[in-house]
Amino acid sequence: MIEETSKENIEVRIQMASEAYQFLKNTTIKERAALMNAVADQIEALGEELLVTAHAETSLPLARLTGEKARTIGQWRSYAKAVASGIYIEPRIDLAQPEKQKGDLRKYHIGLGPVVVFGASNFPFAFSTAGGDTASAIGAGCPVIVKAHPAHPKTSQMMADAITNAVKEFGWPEGIFSHITGTSYEIGTYLTQHKDIQAVAFTGSFSGGKALFDIANRRENPIPVFAEMGSTNPVFALKNLIENKAETLAKEYISSLTLGVGQFCTNPGVFITVKGASLDRFIAAVKNEIQEVAPANMLHNGIYESFEKHKANAITQPDTEVIASEETEEGKGSPAIIKTNAQNFLNNPVLSEEVFGPFGIIVACESREELIQIAQNLKGQLTITVAATSDDVRENPELINLLKDKCGRLLFNGMPTGVEVVYAMQHGGPFPSTTDARFTSVGPDAVKRFVRPISFQNWPDEFLPEELKNENPLQISRIVDGEVNSGSLKLESV
Amino acid sequence: MIEETSKENIEVRIQMASEAYQFLKNTTIKERAALMNAVADQIEALGEELLVTAHAETSLPLARLTGEKARTIGQWRSYAKAVASGIYIEPRIDLAQPEKQKGDLRKYHIGLGPVVVFGASNFPFAFSTAGGDTASAIGAGCPVIVKAHPAHPKTSQMMADAITNAVKEFGWPEGIFSHITGTSYEIGTYLTQHKDIQAVAFTGSFSGGKALFDIANRRENPIPVFAEMGSTNPVFALKNLIENKAETLAKEYISSLTLGVGQFCTNPGVFITVKGASLDRFIAAVKNEIQEVAPANMLHNGIYESFEKHKANAITQPDTEVIASEETEEGKGSPAIIKTNAQNFLNNPVLSEEVFGPFGIIVACESREELIQIAQNLKGQLTITVAATSDDVRENPELINLLKDKCGRLLFNGMPTGVEVVYAMQHGGPFPSTTDARFTSVGPDAVKRFVRPISFQNWPDEFLPEELKNENPLQISRIVDGEVNSGSLKLESV
Repeated sequence: MIEETSKENIEVRIQMASEAYQFLKNTTIKERAALMNAVADQIEALGEELLVTAHAETSLPLARLTGEKARTIGQWRSYAKAVASGIYIEPRIDLAQPEKQKGDLRKYHIGLGPVVVFGASNFPFAFSTAGGDTASAIGAGCPVIVKAHPAHPKTSQMMADAITNAVKEFGWPEGIFSHITGTSYEIGTYLTQHKDIQAVAFTGSFSGGKALFDIANRRENPIPVFAEMGSTNPVFALKNLIENKAETLAKEYISSLTLGVGQFCTNPGVFITVKGASLDRFIAAVKNEIQEVAPANMLHNGIYESFEKHKANAITQPDTEVIASEETEEGKGSPAIIKTNAQNFLNNPVLSEEVFGPFGIIVACESREELIQIAQNLKGQLTITVAATSDDVRENPELINLLKDKCGRLLFNGMPTGVEVVYAMQHGGPFPSTTDARFTSVGPDAVKRFVRPISFQNWPDEFLPEELKNENPLQISRIVDGEVNSGSLKLESV
Repeated sequence: MIEETSKENIEVRIQMASEAYQFLKNTTIKERAALMNAVADQIEALGEELLVTAHAETSLPLARLTGEKARTIGQWRSYAKAVASGIYIEPRIDLAQPEKQKGDLRKYHIGLGPVVVFGASNFPFAFSTAGGDTASAIGAGCPVIVKAHPAHPKTSQMMADAITNAVKEFGWPEGIFSHITGTSYEIGTYLTQHKDIQAVAFTGSFSGGKALFDIANRRENPIPVFAEMGSTNPVFALKNLIENKAETLAKEYISSLTLGVGQFCTNPGVFITVKGASLDRFIAAVKNEIQEVAPANMLHNGIYESFEKHKANAITQPDTEVIASEETEEGKGSPAIIKTNAQNFLNNPVLSEEVFGPFGIIVACESREELIQIAQNLKGQLTITVAATSDDVRENPELINLLKDKCGRLLFNGMPTGVEVVYAMQHGGPFPSTTDARFTSVGPDAVKRFVRPISFQNWPDEFLPEELKNENPLQISRIVDGEVNSGSLKLESV
């Protein structure tokens, strides 16, 4: 039974967050990075108990949870390092000069203000209470109010305590982090509408993310919503590659499609290629591979029921053919694959919808022109994979160029599941995969979502933030008069 | 008489822009910078005729237009230099390593797609057809469709021709730049709703900007709108400063308030201080200074009529006192200043509305607490000025900290009019001064509005954009495995 945080308590926490923001605004990037490292230490100290608790609540295997815990700690530490480097405050100094009208101008980025984070169910550590959204918002200088995902309440509470302990250890205002629990939609609406909330981060369904986006834009003062709403992550298999490697490709595809019972945002739900003997070989191999997959428990019953419902709906669409459909066991995600033709795929929107779980559609095109037609009509995706040889790429420049408009991450072979937490990762993509293709929710660049620039004109050095002082006490790289400069500024009498 | 571009022609231009985007996406930062420099040359070549034409259409003095032309050319050149440096594509490379799951990841930023720019009336060069929005969008790799401001059609056409000539000279697709004319609101709505348009930039009224923002967010695929909608740019005059310099401050204030007949987005329309002898001296000086101001023609009759209407409305609000109100002459913006108390200012929203033109409100507070109360209740502003001594700053930490939440540029003395085109400039601020406080519309950072990241996973070097190739042929600074790196990458057999 999940306790619903009362409106009164939510109000108190928002007020505390607003006060904490006034404090955080005056912390330096190095100080915030130190707090983030302390949170990482606290999570590490949760030890085995965290894994056991999460395993009981989510059915996720211990090995997977061990990896996700390491990833989550790594997120706090690597984002801390990036924050400390000054990369996200983008310090710029334009010194006073005789020919300039305005004198001395110095700009950097501050946090937007209190941020609401909605925990996700499919990553109880990495995208939940102490996940990447919380880490990046705190790194930006924003207090965070987490609306915990009700599917793993004990895990969330352990993570919340870890963050709170770190904040206490620093003697910083408690309002830097708040943890709200409940199952009603009203809490999310209330938080998103609240005048003191300045941004929202969400990972989940299209309907959930889009509803928050609409609420935020209808406020008297609209605020950004970073909603990652999933996608079908199409794989375009081109002629030479599928001809050379139909069987290997089938193995890779089924392995990725059924990984973690298909419960990844980057699950490759659509496979598109031109029909012919190579596709027939691919399909034969798919039928073999899928028999090797043992159905496993899904994250919670809601996801299982939704999977069964959407799978059944997709399978019964006209002009589709079932390639493989494993027998259903209560609570377990049994994989299924169907096949259709390009025109049916283009004309029936149901077939383009994400089915969250191990479900795939193979689209058999008549020609390369139909591949391009599908690319043109594709909605925004987190990832698109081009299964191709170099010759295939050379022969399909128009297709490849088009696909760049439709995704945040474009793969040359391999499969999209597995998201590396590095600078060069883009986890985000054009609408409707996210509400804002300009940002990523994975990798240190996730911090950029929660900052805005402020420019100081002609302020005496003593009143400037450390990041912008002449001496450059934090020894960061800054753009001074248009050039990169990591030194201190020797100015004559200011 | 302004010709209305037909729907059919608009459709043709949008189609051309979409095709041009496919081309622009594959140009390098250096190539786009070269085009921008060519546009600057073309504008320069328009010579005196441009100034004479704009003077006839806008009533702006030739000296001011000469400066604005130089600024506009400078924008194209300085944004070109910034684009060529690679700063806005943010190249990040994470090389394949044994311990990584995903292999080689490389990310940079590409243009969002076709952008609609609405020209403004008050800067016929710098914020209009060939202004900063157009320059920054093209630098980002986005084709631009300008909806010309109807107040200076010949000036706009000359600028449009300059851009078109540069595009032709390069042999690049004509669709990179389009010029739409007309006076109906429907054109703007149509463009903003069009599925192929990916972003909108606007400078003008709150009602205009907010309408576009709402239209864009209600699209099936929402797009960003960067609307700069103006503000009242409050001046907070603190105790010691006004005591020491009441007369100088009055001179500076009136000079800024009436500069260019008050037709600047950064016009300081509100002056806030604690009542007393210093304020009385300030007001006496204001009355003197304002008599020195000769009323001059406003930009066009619509602005003049709107100014008179809003001025009359503000002056007739209860509990206000007219400090100075120059006699009105048809077409000319005659300055006026009124005075009110803090509680009246806080309770009557009319007094917080921007009156576009030389109009100011002096708010006399009872105490420092009322200064803070006003700061807390202030809507988002482009600029806030703190007229203060260093002691004043030391004595008012809470006020100064609060003001950072309410503006994009915070001044220590001086006046906000005059916007320097440099990296450290922030021309933007919290809603409702703009629709997106996270971006600036002045300075090279304006380019950031029109890009989004894309990540390439495991692509062979030959298919990567120049910006991400191993060799680093453009010799730009990149983040490689988390560290800044300006060299080429020597990789063993890829």
